[in-house]
Amino acid sequence: MKNICFVVAMQAEAQPFIDRYGVTEVPDFFAPLPCKLYQVQLVHTTLNVVLNGQQHGSDLVGCEAASVATMAAIQRLHPDIIINSGTCGAFKSNGAAIGDVFIGNAVMFHDRRVPGDDAWGTQALGNYPVYAGAVKIANDLGFKLGKVTTGSSLDMQPCDLQIIQENHGELKDMEGAAVAFVCSLFSVPVLFIKSVTDLCDSGAETFEEFSRNLAMASQAVSDANAKVIDYLAEG
Amino acid sequence: MKNICFVVAMQAEAQPFIDRYGVTEVPDFFAPLPCKLYQVQLVHTTLNVVLNGQQHGSDLVGCEAASVATMAAIQRLHPDIIINSGTCGAFKSNGAAIGDVFIGNAVMFHDRRVPGDDAWGTQALGNYPVYAGAVKIANDLGFKLGKVTTGSSLDMQPCDLQIIQENHGELKDMEGAAVAFVCSLFSVPVLFIKSVTDLCDSGAETFEEFSRNLAMASQAVSDANAKVIDYLAEG
Repeated sequence: MKNICFVVAMQAEAQPFIDRYGVTEVPDFFAPLPCKLYQVQLVHTTLNVVLNGQQHGSDLVGCEAASVATMAAIQRLHPDIIINSGTCGAFKSNGAAIGDVFIGNAVMFHDRRVPGDDAWGTQALGNYPVYAGAVKIANDLGFKLGKVTTGSSLDMQPCDLQIIQENHGELKDMEGAAVAFVCSLFSVPVLFIKSVTDLCDSGAETFEEFSRNLAMASQAVSDANAKVIDYLAEG
Repeated sequence: MKNICFVVAMQAEAQPFIDRYGVTEVPDFFAPLPCKLYQVQLVHTTLNVVLNGQQHGSDLVGCEAASVATMAAIQRLHPDIIINSGTCGAFKSNGAAIGDVFIGNAVMFHDRRVPGDDAWGTQALGNYPVYAGAVKIANDLGFKLGKVTTGSSLDMQPCDLQIIQENHGELKDMEGAAVAFVCSLFSVPVLFIKSVTDLCDSGAETFEEFSRNLAMASQAVSDANAKVIDYLAEG
């Protein structure tokens, strides 16, 4: 692949990755949008890293900001693939541990409750396609596989857990399905690389556990990103 | 104003309005996006109506589709104002009745739960600016005023109601805050025109009540839209 574009929500999630490649920001590339572009030409490929940017003093997170950043990235950069990398919650009952790196093999929403098993219910869940090579990447590079499940909240309410369990969600994040939705509209392949900051079924307080493990998990995802870039750039 | 752009989620919500103006679709204007454009030149202004379009056999609803449609509309049409019109739930405890038409005087999210009263909590709620002339429009044209509160689900869980009550949300919809978020990024004014299909505190089943009142409420919002267009086109 000649043109790889990462979409990442938080600066802290991307920083180890940005530092590794020594890339610098292309100022105001997406203006007036707050999204930020970091770009570097590698031997075989152009590497783009797009962050949501900030509003009102904090990094934009969640599904609306992810939709905007993904759409802007596709429109302006025309990537061969969008890679949504970052941190997530997971379930120890599925065998996940803090710091584990997963490749997404599917993606859904868990907090869009619209009645019915019909077209409305199908749309609400999403279940967008992921990059056809995702399973092979995980197997070849030694990563776990899991289904990304996205909601707009850091916590998990009983109604969220019910939908996650019924639909076999494993990697709880706040952007993945929005990124995949926009990619589906533009027919751009999407790949997920997620490392675990917190265990949804550990009994620990999520925000405390997330904050404590953010730097470590971001380093783990940075290492994984580099392996995937090498793999895709040669392919 | 010379260029007014409506963003509407469902075809059924927009149809009475489209029929009233006799506008026809501009085919594939937003391709490859599924968003649909209806456009007509009135005496004083260009009237655009943008629908989210369909995916997987149903009209796209919710915050991700609204983000995409609003961004595409602003990028391609450069409107003076975005008007998000459609139906909503409301509370009879606030004096609302089925078929009432409201102008939004504020807008927030109620289903983005991120801890803290700090920048994260502020971002999660949104509370984006609305068009500075909103209150005057409501007063001059005889509409009620209310705070739009947006979530990705048709139902209302206890955690949603708590945030709605704490932050004085009144008009429960599935797109408004996402439209306002994107407008805030592009510094485009946003106005809300919402008619009530269901009462969140009536005890009735929401989907049944919504479905029963959708056509009537869509007619009411169409009548209101025409008054607002006349008002803004002259201003």
